[in-house]
Amino acid sequence: ADVKKIAVIAGDGIGPEVVGEALKVLKKTEELFGYQFETEHGLFGGIAIDEKGTPLPQETLDICKNADAVLLGAVGGPKWDNNSKELRPETGLLGIRKALGLFSNIRPANVFDCLKEASTLKPEVLDGTDLIVVRELTGGIYFGEKFRREGEHGEEAVDTCVYNVKEVERIARQGFEIARTRRKKLASVDKANVLETSRLWREVVNRIAVEYPDVELEHVLVDNCAMQLLRRPSSFDVIVTENMFGDIISDEAAMLTGSIGMLSSASLGEGSFGLYEPVHGSAPDIAGQGISNPIATILSVALMFRLTFGYAEAAQCIEDAVKSVLDAGHRTGDIAVDKSKAIGTIEMGDLIIAAM
Amino acid sequence: ADVKKIAVIAGDGIGPEVVGEALKVLKKTEELFGYQFETEHGLFGGIAIDEKGTPLPQETLDICKNADAVLLGAVGGPKWDNNSKELRPETGLLGIRKALGLFSNIRPANVFDCLKEASTLKPEVLDGTDLIVVRELTGGIYFGEKFRREGEHGEEAVDTCVYNVKEVERIARQGFEIARTRRKKLASVDKANVLETSRLWREVVNRIAVEYPDVELEHVLVDNCAMQLLRRPSSFDVIVTENMFGDIISDEAAMLTGSIGMLSSASLGEGSFGLYEPVHGSAPDIAGQGISNPIATILSVALMFRLTFGYAEAAQCIEDAVKSVLDAGHRTGDIAVDKSKAIGTIEMGDLIIAAM
Ligand SMILES: CC(C)[C@H](C(=O)O)[C@@H](O)C(=O)O
Ligand SMILES: CC(C)[C@H](C(=O)O)[C@@H](O)C(=O)O
Repeated sequence: ADVKKIAVIAGDGIGPEVVGEALKVLKKTEELFGYQFETEHGLFGGIAIDEKGTPLPQETLDICKNADAVLLGAVGGPKWDNNSKELRPETGLLGIRKALGLFSNIRPANVFDCLKEASTLKPEVLDGTDLIVVRELTGGIYFGEKFRREGEHGEEAVDTCVYNVKEVERIARQGFEIARTRRKKLASVDKANVLETSRLWREVVNRIAVEYPDVELEHVLVDNCAMQLLRRPSSFDVIVTENMFGDIISDEAAMLTGSIGMLSSASLGEGSFGLYEPVHGSAPDIAGQGISNPIATILSVALMFRLTFGYAEAAQCIEDAVKSVLDAGHRTGDIAVDKSKAIGTIEMGDLIIAAM
Repeated sequence: ADVKKIAVIAGDGIGPEVVGEALKVLKKTEELFGYQFETEHGLFGGIAIDEKGTPLPQETLDICKNADAVLLGAVGGPKWDNNSKELRPETGLLGIRKALGLFSNIRPANVFDCLKEASTLKPEVLDGTDLIVVRELTGGIYFGEKFRREGEHGEEAVDTCVYNVKEVERIARQGFEIARTRRKKLASVDKANVLETSRLWREVVNRIAVEYPDVELEHVLVDNCAMQLLRRPSSFDVIVTENMFGDIISDEAAMLTGSIGMLSSASLGEGSFGLYEPVHGSAPDIAGQGISNPIATILSVALMFRLTFGYAEAAQCIEDAVKSVLDAGHRTGDIAVDKSKAIGTIEMGDLIIAAM
């Protein structure tokens, strides 16, 4: 049989709780669809710092490299916030992206109709909002040389933003390919009126665009994009952008849907391998109370099924189950209007499994 | 008498129209308050490219340097968008900031009660939103070395982000000083979990904070800030941040108020000299039709009165006049709900002058 190997990284805060529910869903798909999964757990982030002295132990990296896909909970927390750079959870995150070659981060920001009220945007503005941010994930200012030096005016800090043609080409293609499967509109976000990397970005995107005459391309300056997302969110289909802009724009897009507890993401490299995780963080303030929302992590499994395994039917089954549970009015605390009726993490997981 | 010299740069698109109304307001304050202004006009941006072959002619720079303040309309337009870097309006903008030492950009984002409906945010979320973004304007990745080179994987582009301690100190102080005159809350926005310049930024801000024990300081990561602006806009008072993040965050903040046609900004250096301009752009699509909204430019004069000349009473007079005209229901097309009742640029200017 075709056994799929999944590296499971629960991480910190609510990570283990939400991953727990996602694993139950995974198991249920084995029953329902006859799939076979082999999971292997790895330490990562804060817990790895505590237990192994590094946020990304070699062992964990090996588990990931040996797997077909990675399911990640969340990492980080105040406990490690003041650590030196090498001993911070985020350093592990950047490290794993680079080590696994995950150059493309896919973040769908869609509105769950039954949660529209949770958005701070007017419902009529939000209507029809369904966009995907494709963020370059292993280049730019995140990975360029960084250092301190003595300058003319005292100490100075330097970060370097570098992009080469190849890096832009592959992420641009990714953007066009995804747009092609959707409403065929691609917004490429840059700051070409100021940055040299953005001018290169725009040149390459324009060159690749010739291969995709069926996709309508627009160039949007990043400051304008931050505005247009608020003004006309539903007019965006796919947004492709570099690492730093993608970090900001994808979070803004996620928040405006009002569904931040529900959004999943995929980080992909060449081939079908991918790392899947919820968009939300480790929420240390509510960790261990059994009240976190497991839906984003459960939907990350659906995304993994679609993008890495090609299990579209099972993905649909999970997504439909989530929808039906929400439609029936069940809510965890983060998305409940009446907080007194909120259900717990495990209860939500169980309901979703029952609905599958 | 104390004659104040104002350099007037009308610029491109709707720039000349909106500046025209602002100059009428200026004149009116001479009558009402006995002030004396001497204005000198300079070419800048696209029009300067067309007439002088450069976006920032030396002559214009001299006029500015010789003045107590600069009033700027707007620059840019599709006509010059594909020019080479030296022949683009934005290059003039960056040049004038640097040449005049305007290291601090102050962008108030407040909600005009009567325009609340124009925002895409729910009115109850917007309630009480009144924030100022203090953006560093002459450092960071905007002004660092930028170049192309042959790399291992073909051509690559490089931008460099540099900040020294002095640059961060002066903008941080600016942020704390402004917070002190308001609700005494400062949010410093950075990406300290990734960037070395942000780590330096945070260290310096923390050091300066000791001088301002009355101001409550919070550090917010830029991606989180993009979200929190949507989630809880009214909880922000003053936001201080570096150049690139400020570009994005200030535009997002401006847009969420729904009042983008109404917002003015100041760019300040050491001392009282300042450059004042509306937040909106040159709107080439409606230029020359006499329908643009002059309010942001008129309010830029009020800001100039407050920050450069210390004419608080006259500033208040202008602001009150704007408010009363809006309260009476007058609207230009951009802010009118019933577009058929919209009034023109000159009519709006006249009404405001009449209300002074
Ligand atoms: C934790 C941080 C380094 C990370 C990033 O900026 O990439 C996070 O914000 C994200 O978006 O995954
Ligand atoms: C035109 C551009 C160079 C400029 C900037 O990015 O600073 C503009 O967006 C602004 O915010 O004033």
